[in-house]
Amino acid sequence: MRAVRVHEYGTAPSVDEVPDPRVRGPWDVLVRVDAAGVCRTDLHIVEGQWARKSGVALPYVLGHENAGTVVEIGSAVTNVLVGDKVILHPLVTCGLCRPCRAGDDVHCENSSFPGIDADGGMAELLLTNARSCVKLAEGLAPVDAAALADAGLTAYHAVRRAVPLLYPGAHVVLVGAGGLGHIGIQVLTALSPAELTVVDRSREALRVAGELGAEHTVVADGAHVDAVMEITGGRGAQVVLDFVGEGGTEREGVAMTRDAGSYFVIGYGGALDVSTIDLVSREISVVGNLVGSYNDLDELMHLAARGRVRQRTRTYPLEAAPQAFDDLDHGRLPGARAVLEPVTG
Amino acid sequence: MRAVRVHEYGTAPSVDEVPDPRVRGPWDVLVRVDAAGVCRTDLHIVEGQWARKSGVALPYVLGHENAGTVVEIGSAVTNVLVGDKVILHPLVTCGLCRPCRAGDDVHCENSSFPGIDADGGMAELLLTNARSCVKLAEGLAPVDAAALADAGLTAYHAVRRAVPLLYPGAHVVLVGAGGLGHIGIQVLTALSPAELTVVDRSREALRVAGELGAEHTVVADGAHVDAVMEITGGRGAQVVLDFVGEGGTEREGVAMTRDAGSYFVIGYGGALDVSTIDLVSREISVVGNLVGSYNDLDELMHLAARGRVRQRTRTYPLEAAPQAFDDLDHGRLPGARAVLEPVTG
Amino acid sequence: MRAVRVHEYGTAPSVDEVPDPRVRGPWDVLVRVDAAGVCRTDLHIVEGQWARKSGVALPYVLGHENAGTVVEIGSAVTNVLVGDKVILHPLVTCGLCRPCRAGDDVHCENSSFPGIDADGGMAELLLTNARSCVKLAEGLAPVDAAALADAGLTAYHAVRRAVPLLYPGAHVVLVGAGGLGHIGIQVLTALSPAELTVVDRSREALRVAGELGAEHTVVADGAHVDAVMEITGGRGAQVVLDFVGEGGTEREGVAMTRDAGSYFVIGYGGALDVSTIDLVSREISVVGNLVGSYNDLDELMHLAARGRVRQRTRTYPLEAAPQAFDDLDHGRLPGARAVLEPVTG
Amino acid sequence: MRAVRVHEYGTAPSVDEVPDPRVRGPWDVLVRVDAAGVCRTDLHIVEGQWARKSGVALPYVLGHENAGTVVEIGSAVTNVLVGDKVILHPLVTCGLCRPCRAGDDVHCENSSFPGIDADGGMAELLLTNARSCVKLAEGLAPVDAAALADAGLTAYHAVRRAVPLLYPGAHVVLVGAGGLGHIGIQVLTALSPAELTVVDRSREALRVAGELGAEHTVVADGAHVDAVMEITGGRGAQVVLDFVGEGGTEREGVAMTRDAGSYFVIGYGGALDVSTIDLVSREISVVGNLVGSYNDLDELMHLAARGRVRQRTRTYPLEAAPQAFDDLDHGRLPGARAVLEPVTG
Repeated sequence: MRAVRVHEYGTAPSVDEVPDPRVRGPWDVLVRVDAAGVCRTDLHIVEGQWARKSGVALPYVLGHENAGTVVEIGSAVTNVLVGDKVILHPLVTCGLCRPCRAGDDVHCENSSFPGIDADGGMAELLLTNARSCVKLAEGLAPVDAAALADAGLTAYHAVRRAVPLLYPGAHVVLVGAGGLGHIGIQVLTALSPAELTVVDRSREALRVAGELGAEHTVVADGAHVDAVMEITGGRGAQVVLDFVGEGGTEREGVAMTRDAGSYFVIGYGGALDVSTIDLVSREISVVGNLVGSYNDLDELMHLAARGRVRQRTRTYPLEAAPQAFDDLDHGRLPGARAVLEPVTG
Repeated sequence: MRAVRVHEYGTAPSVDEVPDPRVRGPWDVLVRVDAAGVCRTDLHIVEGQWARKSGVALPYVLGHENAGTVVEIGSAVTNVLVGDKVILHPLVTCGLCRPCRAGDDVHCENSSFPGIDADGGMAELLLTNARSCVKLAEGLAPVDAAALADAGLTAYHAVRRAVPLLYPGAHVVLVGAGGLGHIGIQVLTALSPAELTVVDRSREALRVAGELGAEHTVVADGAHVDAVMEITGGRGAQVVLDFVGEGGTEREGVAMTRDAGSYFVIGYGGALDVSTIDLVSREISVVGNLVGSYNDLDELMHLAARGRVRQRTRTYPLEAAPQAFDDLDHGRLPGARAVLEPVTG
Repeated sequence: MRAVRVHEYGTAPSVDEVPDPRVRGPWDVLVRVDAAGVCRTDLHIVEGQWARKSGVALPYVLGHENAGTVVEIGSAVTNVLVGDKVILHPLVTCGLCRPCRAGDDVHCENSSFPGIDADGGMAELLLTNARSCVKLAEGLAPVDAAALADAGLTAYHAVRRAVPLLYPGAHVVLVGAGGLGHIGIQVLTALSPAELTVVDRSREALRVAGELGAEHTVVADGAHVDAVMEITGGRGAQVVLDFVGEGGTEREGVAMTRDAGSYFVIGYGGALDVSTIDLVSREISVVGNLVGSYNDLDELMHLAARGRVRQRTRTYPLEAAPQAFDDLDHGRLPGARAVLEPVTG
Repeated sequence: MRAVRVHEYGTAPSVDEVPDPRVRGPWDVLVRVDAAGVCRTDLHIVEGQWARKSGVALPYVLGHENAGTVVEIGSAVTNVLVGDKVILHPLVTCGLCRPCRAGDDVHCENSSFPGIDADGGMAELLLTNARSCVKLAEGLAPVDAAALADAGLTAYHAVRRAVPLLYPGAHVVLVGAGGLGHIGIQVLTALSPAELTVVDRSREALRVAGELGAEHTVVADGAHVDAVMEITGGRGAQVVLDFVGEGGTEREGVAMTRDAGSYFVIGYGGALDVSTIDLVSREISVVGNLVGSYNDLDELMHLAARGRVRQRTRTYPLEAAPQAFDDLDHGRLPGARAVLEPVTG
């Protein structure tokens, strides 16, 4: 089959002919990849930023946002049949450790992460296991779902954790209305009637945020912390969701958080530097957020199937992967996600 | 009446003759102070560290850990009678704002804090309001309870918030087995069967920790993070409670926290510096903790009345306040709290 | 002033001239009643059903759903000023007992309930206290809010408690789309994206339910339990909200509840008869629901101010109270609530 | 192998020679049964009470409380090795449905229940799957653990759910200090400092309850509801745990529950008959409880390994199963559980 592989960090990936993966274990599921999202993390991988963290051996196949069609299943698989349309949870998990058994499969003690530390989905076929497969509802196409498998799932997960802290009349601030942020806004609107303020540098992103349901939008022009404090009656927000996590939003996020409130960190790249007396005297929590669980993904698919979460995409055949990477890298995809279509490509 | 007052920051407080406070408002309660705890915060106040934060006008009366006997009540007070023995919640709150009405009176939008930003309890009489009074159970004397009003209440509150994250087989690490830490250990033992490891520099403090129920004790000698990782099977603890919050425990606390775990900050003085990718990829929470609520104090008094939380004290007459401050400042009170007895003094 | 009073159970109330209530205690608030909702409970009171339970001495003034304008305040009141428009929480609470201090003021150990066990708001003036007053947002008129003070608040409270049990893809069934039920549907739609099925005998009520956001509507024609089982994939709903609570819905509600699910009882009149083996083997919870807390009412007002919860009303002058009672009793108010306007009347 | 089988309802089971079960599927685990608890449910099965509910085909092997040694594993099993000592969760679950993935494996949509609807563990060998195996800690013998696999796990699960509703100063009442109740008392003492009252007909059972940590014991002599009301200051308990669930405890349990409190039903046999106005006006919850999850069992094993939960047992060889059943049926095992030892027998 054809697959997009990294051969050397710092060098663009190439589309190679590689052997087909095959079902070996009883839990294995082989999926024909109908759609594979291209994510900023893919650019970082190519640059080598994940080399040490993932420890993956080169060359390997990229792609951690995948949806497709089941083509073969192992002997123990009971939850999907050949022909089922599925979106794949990004982690392949064991189902036996305590986190898996507590519904926190993201912290599985024996997981792999195709596209990060194993061969991923920018290929015609992807080998995964039964525990990763979420069946797509009638009417939801792989190409529309794929980009929700990781980026959308991360946004969903953070919002889902924040919702119990919110109520009608509470304030929530969302910093960064890019790809994840737009999903975050839609999920917030679906799950909570709290008063939503969105902060971003881009007026266009804020315009879309307003259409998606933000009550207030604030341009990140240096006066934005003050603007948020005014909107929140001088007290800050019960919850701040930071989809940026670098370039100063770390400090601003803490400043915009109300006493006894929570600052959710979703984006990354920077560092949080806060005195312990500030944490204590204001009694705030700083909450790190990773990708969501399998059940989170299942819930997100319900929202997507009802049209409550939508994502604009631009599709490319597999061969055009370098073009997709380049478009993403150079900001030529405002408000849209690049999605490869390996099979139809 | 006699009262211990700060006249100038950097100068020792003096015992002065001042006018008696009087009941004026319908919610007011006047308490004869039978016991007033001396706390490290009192030293910091005298040094001037709180000057800007509290904004209190000098001279004023110290003392934020108070217990005593009700001597006069305002016209609207229904929950205490003259003669009742009470411990006083450190904050005087309004009861009408949303936090007060949600059980989070510590974040009252209209509170005062006697001993910090208003006249406190190192005096024969203290003016407070009905909402601060917790009646002492039969058999619990003000002198035994007073030092729990702020320090003990802080430890109780942090542990109470941590307990839902624990379970039999989970690990909890408590850093700093001093005054607050010792209360924390006793509360943990009463509220959770999780496996408790205590870290401290002092072998004597660790010996006491072991007697109070710690399963493991670790000397903070530089190898302590490794020791905790070994105890926790290489994964760290589900909860780390940091009663120090300075001098490196901030970084070590994060390091000892398991992925998806929580690092509770109770002590302060230092700063937390953590990359957002660490917060995100490990999905940890950093949880600031302030003093507990009124109901927290009521619960702590139930534990104290049953002998499940005890604190060693050394008593001083009010006139000996300078001596008590000096003993505390020079480490002459290991494992014990100084308590002034204004009336019997 | 004029007031609607019950003189004898079983006899229609009359509009009498009575002395004005006056502010006496420091917490008292005197409110000019701009709007007083008429509720089915008022009919039951007149019939004598509440005689033993309330123990109120006749004659007394009806009216437990009140909104108006503050005209006088006691010496300790700080949260409202004369001239403020307010909706009144139905209970007058102490603020000092543990439930009040835990945010559960409905279970205050020292409360009164104007209109039930004390003089209520079907009068020109009502005496309440500071803790009952929720200020109305700009643009929300007392006449639009009043009927939410008890009926709407009950629906809000039940839904608010149910929401943490729901998620995208979960099923919730609401039985009884009358006055409370209609508010319940609107609150559900605002707070949760779960799949909502509404069951009622009236096709007209179901039509409105569909407009308000119900995904499925089922006529209660005897086959409705089967219909719900089919909608829920044969498993029943994670949450069933029963706004009827009599005439068979008790048994049907349990039957429509999924294993490990919750059956919320809001309406009453009947009895639940269920074997303990059913409760245990299916592991279901039966959850009684009373009126909401002060903070619940504040949150509901936020939804009302944003137009997310609306209630149709028909207004009557105070003198027309007997007509309003009669219209309600004879079903001449489909989909609307009767509201008295004592002052303009 | 030898196995205890039911051939006909109403007739005593016999010890038969049957073919050995064998590992077939990749998830299968074959366990040599070192200990199999005898439970009152076994008596009910023999009487035929479960015939319709389980639908099992006769003859089949009894035994749903099992511990032993792994003797063979399927190709996909990674969590246990041959030779491991294990206790078996009573359900064999799929790991793929939503309940399994949410940590609620007891409500697995594809489970079997050996000893109830499939061949159980009163035999030399038992076939189960990887998901049922909890490894025993060093020093915990199968014979000491087995009887905790179902009865103990049920008690643990109910208490674990009740603990978040309790706090120092709250009241909890436990009705029925028999086999499950004794485990319940020990778990309560380990997990909560709430004030515990135990109600039972037997003075001997109450004596043991007091030794295990109950603060109050009340003989169920007809005046016991009044006694509990007096102990709880006239308000009832925040939580009532009913391990009987028949013979009047259903009504008494509701009566002893404080307003806004919860009545946990664990025992069964009777029926709950309560008016909806009582549920609503007192705002109480009735909470059905089934057996605990896999993680619950793992937690219970941690308590057992630390000696915080103990159970007296009387052992019998497999051939003496009829004697064990008879001893249980005729009350010759006060305070102890019968455990068969199939292999050593």
